[in-house]
Amino acid sequence: MDHPSSPAEWTRAAGALLGTMRARVPLVHCLTNHVVTNFTANVLLAAGAAPAMIHDPEESSIFAGVASALLVNVGTIEREQAEAMRRAVAAANAAGRPWVLDPVAVGALPLRTHVSSDLSAQRPAMIRGNASEILALAGAGAGGRGVDATEGVDAAADAARALAERTGAAVLVTGPVDLVVAPGGAEPVRVANGVPLLTRVTGVGCSQGALCAALCAAADGDARLAAVAAALLVGIAGERAAHVSERPGSFAVAFLDALDEIDGAAFEAEGKVLA
Amino acid sequence: MDHPSSPAEWTRAAGALLGTMRARVPLVHCLTNHVVTNFTANVLLAAGAAPAMIHDPEESSIFAGVASALLVNVGTIEREQAEAMRRAVAAANAAGRPWVLDPVAVGALPLRTHVSSDLSAQRPAMIRGNASEILALAGAGAGGRGVDATEGVDAAADAARALAERTGAAVLVTGPVDLVVAPGGAEPVRVANGVPLLTRVTGVGCSQGALCAALCAAADGDARLAAVAAALLVGIAGERAAHVSERPGSFAVAFLDALDEIDGAAFEAEGKVLA
Amino acid sequence: MDHPSSPAEWTRAAGALLGTMRARVPLVHCLTNHVVTNFTANVLLAAGAAPAMIHDPEESSIFAGVASALLVNVGTIEREQAEAMRRAVAAANAAGRPWVLDPVAVGALPLRTHVSSDLSAQRPAMIRGNASEILALAGAGAGGRGVDATEGVDAAADAARALAERTGAAVLVTGPVDLVVAPGGAEPVRVANGVPLLTRVTGVGCSQGALCAALCAAADGDARLAAVAAALLVGIAGERAAHVSERPGSFAVAFLDALDEIDGAAFEAEGKVLA
Repeated sequence: MDHPSSPAEWTRAAGALLGTMRARVPLVHCLTNHVVTNFTANVLLAAGAAPAMIHDPEESSIFAGVASALLVNVGTIEREQAEAMRRAVAAANAAGRPWVLDPVAVGALPLRTHVSSDLSAQRPAMIRGNASEILALAGAGAGGRGVDATEGVDAAADAARALAERTGAAVLVTGPVDLVVAPGGAEPVRVANGVPLLTRVTGVGCSQGALCAALCAAADGDARLAAVAAALLVGIAGERAAHVSERPGSFAVAFLDALDEIDGAAFEAEGKVLA
Repeated sequence: MDHPSSPAEWTRAAGALLGTMRARVPLVHCLTNHVVTNFTANVLLAAGAAPAMIHDPEESSIFAGVASALLVNVGTIEREQAEAMRRAVAAANAAGRPWVLDPVAVGALPLRTHVSSDLSAQRPAMIRGNASEILALAGAGAGGRGVDATEGVDAAADAARALAERTGAAVLVTGPVDLVVAPGGAEPVRVANGVPLLTRVTGVGCSQGALCAALCAAADGDARLAAVAAALLVGIAGERAAHVSERPGSFAVAFLDALDEIDGAAFEAEGKVLA
Repeated sequence: MDHPSSPAEWTRAAGALLGTMRARVPLVHCLTNHVVTNFTANVLLAAGAAPAMIHDPEESSIFAGVASALLVNVGTIEREQAEAMRRAVAAANAAGRPWVLDPVAVGALPLRTHVSSDLSAQRPAMIRGNASEILALAGAGAGGRGVDATEGVDAAADAARALAERTGAAVLVTGPVDLVVAPGGAEPVRVANGVPLLTRVTGVGCSQGALCAALCAAADGDARLAAVAAALLVGIAGERAAHVSERPGSFAVAFLDALDEIDGAAFEAEGKVLA
């Protein structure tokens, strides 16, 4: 396919991908952290996809081949979940289904760092993280103090490019401006949508990982476009929700409403792609 | 007792049961999936019951005898949780407390299918599932793709009847129109309340299982009536919430508000029983 | 420091502590129950602190030294989590970080009772519970039927004092009127803010434990003041939310909004300290 090159081409292509996703209603198998399971499921449903969370290692390996895509988020990883993740990734790869890695808080914490590093070599379609996490996974940083981004997205640009080349994955680095890089010398893309309130609701970033997986399931191999679409969808939904409320409780409710409301036309009218 | 036979008798009896439940504030022990624990607890509290989630196998077996009723939902079952479920069911039976089985996504996935099949022989008061799940548990189908119902409720009518006769449980088959069957040749009852938006909020079905347990605790053995009341309560709450909002975030908030607001008079005025 | 003695001095000092907490944005490591992880994280974010939930025992022990404070809540304790709690408490103590114990439903259930009793000897900065739980942990009661308070706060006043002297912790006993006691013969303080609707939303009490930890991280050793501030913050937020809605779904949303909105001036204007 022809790759988008102008901002208008990017928002149009991303909007078309959102429509394809909704038409397919991809079933996303989420191996994610205990804090965000409910919110992640509601984010997927609001956006037009379907969630499934299967934890048992044996069931997980079977189900990864049934689902349309897989999310692996290491936010509250434990040893048994690590085993379920390894088996689910192998099953997804065997079935040709895309999978997304969200290496939450890698760096100082050993189990997640070890598992994320191992899994990054198992052909993820996309890796999503903040600058600290991408730096740590690429081997260039020591990690942040947890889920906060303590470094700007540009500090991670070289690390993201190296990680993309090494793993074959598109890399979505999240921050006030999001950065998408991809292997093969592709031009980086930046998305400037979003509001600070998005960081005051737990699980927004983690559930974006699930949206990345849902969009990958509709993107027929173009994970770079899926990353741009995921950045636009969360950023625009945040902006619309902030128009409804500037307090975090009602903002979170409005965010879910906005995910349901936004369509391709909204991407074209409100998307801020810097390509 | 005399069984209701007309739609008006059903809504009146179900409304009276809702009042009895609120007067008793039954404590429902929920062994349920990680995705819906919080929402399930809030649904019980909004409807006028009380939740408790105890996971450790030893504590679980003690607590099942303290609680008023037990819910077993296999949605994210793992080996240790399976053991807690087995012990809790035995303790509930020993204490004479009703328990409800929600066989989420049984069929293709081995652990949940094995455990649900075993537990269905341990005298549940009620079994609640969509058509695919009831077909799979009855041995007549291979299961759906997860939590979605991929078959209509009528496709599961014979399977539900066979399951009711085999287990002694009332069976609530959920769908656009819900179906309640019970052992002993009782007439099936259908409830036509509800809106499609209920499928866009995670945990609505799973939390209905907890409401089934709470209503069983007030029904003094009449699990069939409890199933009809649970179908009415969720269906009418969904309809009221859809009047407040047609977007999933604010719809979910309004659904909890409606559970608090609905009373027996609402059952009589808005219930759509097809008996 | 001079201790507050009049109600006005208490609300002023507690309001100043809230401001200090927001300036520091303490990172609170929560080892809490599965039901409330999401709500607890959102409560911390709304109030101006930051959450982290790390479950693996090895990661937990490392992370407790990185975080600003630790919460241990035994609501859905299992054996592996008990080990994570023991190691996290030891690490927090080694690093000089305050930690808070919430002994949910101690008494009749053996694992949580044993672990809470052991941990209470490991120098918690604060212990938070309802009257039944404080009585049980102090050795003077058999526990309630779970998370409900079945006894009034005054019934636990002697037990709370004994527990404070034995452990060195400030003790926050929650109820319609909250009671704060501290070791060393300090005068008890009562806080009369709050509304009954707070008991109709799951996780309000558990998330208050996380706020206690966040406030301890800002209180430089004055856990008694942190307890009073936590009681004021939750109570006033509940009162403000009840002005927005008297139904539990929208009340919960308004509660989060109020946590964001309340500042020191609100403590001084609306706080009901009985000192």
